[in-house]
Amino acid sequence: MNSKQKEDEEQRRRWGARTWSTLAAVRSRSPLIQCITNFVSMDLVANTLLSAGASPAMLHSIEELPDFTPNADALCINVGTLSAAWLPAMKFAAELALKAGKPWVLDPVAAGASKFRMMACLELMQLKPTVVRGNGSEIIALSKASTESSMGVDSSHESTDAVEAAKSLAQNSGAIVAVSGAVDIVTDGKQVIGAHNGVAMMQKITATGCSVTALIAAFLAVDQLHALETTASALSIFGIAGEMGMDAAKGPASLRTHLIDSLYGLDEAAVISRVKIASL
Amino acid sequence: MNSKQKEDEEQRRRWGARTWSTLAAVRSRSPLIQCITNFVSMDLVANTLLSAGASPAMLHSIEELPDFTPNADALCINVGTLSAAWLPAMKFAAELALKAGKPWVLDPVAAGASKFRMMACLELMQLKPTVVRGNGSEIIALSKASTESSMGVDSSHESTDAVEAAKSLAQNSGAIVAVSGAVDIVTDGKQVIGAHNGVAMMQKITATGCSVTALIAAFLAVDQLHALETTASALSIFGIAGEMGMDAAKGPASLRTHLIDSLYGLDEAAVISRVKIASL
Amino acid sequence: MNSKQKEDEEQRRRWGARTWSTLAAVRSRSPLIQCITNFVSMDLVANTLLSAGASPAMLHSIEELPDFTPNADALCINVGTLSAAWLPAMKFAAELALKAGKPWVLDPVAAGASKFRMMACLELMQLKPTVVRGNGSEIIALSKASTESSMGVDSSHESTDAVEAAKSLAQNSGAIVAVSGAVDIVTDGKQVIGAHNGVAMMQKITATGCSVTALIAAFLAVDQLHALETTASALSIFGIAGEMGMDAAKGPASLRTHLIDSLYGLDEAAVISRVKIASL
Repeated sequence: MNSKQKEDEEQRRRWGARTWSTLAAVRSRSPLIQCITNFVSMDLVANTLLSAGASPAMLHSIEELPDFTPNADALCINVGTLSAAWLPAMKFAAELALKAGKPWVLDPVAAGASKFRMMACLELMQLKPTVVRGNGSEIIALSKASTESSMGVDSSHESTDAVEAAKSLAQNSGAIVAVSGAVDIVTDGKQVIGAHNGVAMMQKITATGCSVTALIAAFLAVDQLHALETTASALSIFGIAGEMGMDAAKGPASLRTHLIDSLYGLDEAAVISRVKIASL
Repeated sequence: MNSKQKEDEEQRRRWGARTWSTLAAVRSRSPLIQCITNFVSMDLVANTLLSAGASPAMLHSIEELPDFTPNADALCINVGTLSAAWLPAMKFAAELALKAGKPWVLDPVAAGASKFRMMACLELMQLKPTVVRGNGSEIIALSKASTESSMGVDSSHESTDAVEAAKSLAQNSGAIVAVSGAVDIVTDGKQVIGAHNGVAMMQKITATGCSVTALIAAFLAVDQLHALETTASALSIFGIAGEMGMDAAKGPASLRTHLIDSLYGLDEAAVISRVKIASL
Repeated sequence: MNSKQKEDEEQRRRWGARTWSTLAAVRSRSPLIQCITNFVSMDLVANTLLSAGASPAMLHSIEELPDFTPNADALCINVGTLSAAWLPAMKFAAELALKAGKPWVLDPVAAGASKFRMMACLELMQLKPTVVRGNGSEIIALSKASTESSMGVDSSHESTDAVEAAKSLAQNSGAIVAVSGAVDIVTDGKQVIGAHNGVAMMQKITATGCSVTALIAAFLAVDQLHALETTASALSIFGIAGEMGMDAAKGPASLRTHLIDSLYGLDEAAVISRVKIASL
């Protein structure tokens, strides 16, 4: 083993230990995660959080937010089945989380699908999400629109590369930006970290993206100070659960079942040996 | 076998026979159960009812209630994802069920999460649910708020014990009150019955509570006269399905699958031998 | 093999080849299917579409429709959890699809449950769905109401036979009408085709009807010109997935899992050998 290999091995071990430690903290503290998420995803998001050891609460009424949101440990907002009726509560919950110093995560599902949706995402970005997680096309669309709306010096820059778009969005917004893909990447605008876990078939299960966003919120609830690293850990854990679930899966539906079972049963040895996170 | 043992054995046999008989009636009559329930639970609630032999109908529009609710055999109202937009329909449906003499069941999910939610639950309690089912903290919160709002003689009584809270709530409201927990308990304010079936992992599956509430509604639809006993039977049946599902489960997601399969396949021998209901 | 048997065998082979070809086109083109569907079904509908190779989009906000619907390849509208708040978007989306020349499919869930619901279905029928799919009682109710509201020459005709009702509805509306049952039937008002795949237990899984309606939309997205045949193919494919899933199923919940896995894994040999479609 040469010095480069030693360093890589050391880095791998640190990421494994950090990731396990965060999952263990979620299990022991069982943070309360408020989710204002789309109708399609509510079941899987709740079961993902429960299997990870967190306590999900799907609560979206504007009347309840002042009583509830400040007591939640983190907030997850997902615009999947956005409507004019739900948007004010999304914004108000984000404001309350921000004011209470609680982490909150935005999932800008299909951000580019309509002007209304993009405007909603931009308004939510103004409320300083701790983390934004989307797929490549969502982050590219959001980054481009953010740059345009900010009229900033980079306004002529229209990246079609997800990593560059993520970095630009992180710089403009102050949020950690995560992009799901063959390799998940996370950036604060300077550093870029890659999380290499997961299997392709997870994309054939609806709401896996929404679910990992909620898992990021749960991880942030127990370690808000290192949002960049914690986000990478959450992406890796969900990917590992998918990899282990894939061993017994015969298609997307059985993978969904085994993924959740695996997430529930993950032990330290599996996490340490499987985490594949590295600076890019 | 001494006389105490004989009596216990006799009681056990009576509960087994009664419980099987009610499940068999659900299967043969296939009662129509209207559910106004939260978004997270709709899928599992519908599948629980179908697997038990009932006919679920998720219908919540206030415009439709006068035509529909009086024809349903029972109504289940669950405030999980409560909103100001849905509350009037919940109340109107409860009124219609009450007027039509149909049983209706309330699931006061997270009753204490906000003042708005507690007020909604108290308003629904005024509409005389046949049964209220919640977990310990929900029933304690609701019982305390009911007592306070009633300005009754017990207003200084603030029980933190779920059984005492359930009895107090039952006495004040006239409803049968069920509390899910390690042992499920059911009370009419005087008698207390314990249902000892189920497995702990069911709490790691979202909407299992909502689903057993809906199952109680289905059981009441075929035997409204003995609401106390029928509620205990429904809790026991759901618990048995969980126990049998646990044999093949590798985690919460496979338990969910096996629980529903087991509920569908339950036969008389399994019910008779497994029912664990007893007066406390 | 006599000449009748040869003809049947030839017909069977043509249907197998056509059905496989349409599924293969869905997989290769991955059409974008907008679904405005009920809350109960969103999860299974999305997973059915993903497993078939299509791209689901659950998007129902009226503000988003002008930007989004014209870009979708097909639209599926399901009135299961209908509300006054959602109806305008359903109608507007149907108008946009019609105007853009995109196929759209209506699932008139529980059409006869209330006057409000029937009026909504009739209004949607005015917007010329490509296909309407329901169970027997839904199609009978809708056909009867359509005839009455049209004040047509057949207004005295009140069929209680699903095939006759379907033919009448197809003639009055211009839509292809599909009726799910022990044998699924499809008609354009003249021809009647039967699709004989599927297993009875599929009716014990919530949202299987909604899911096959969405699958019809996905099939139409790649072959709008032969809507009658394409609808029969979609019904057959979903039934085959159920048959293959049934081999490993122990109840409705495991059938649901295996059905989706089977749909994802279907190969040409299985489709060709299993398709049972025939003119009636």
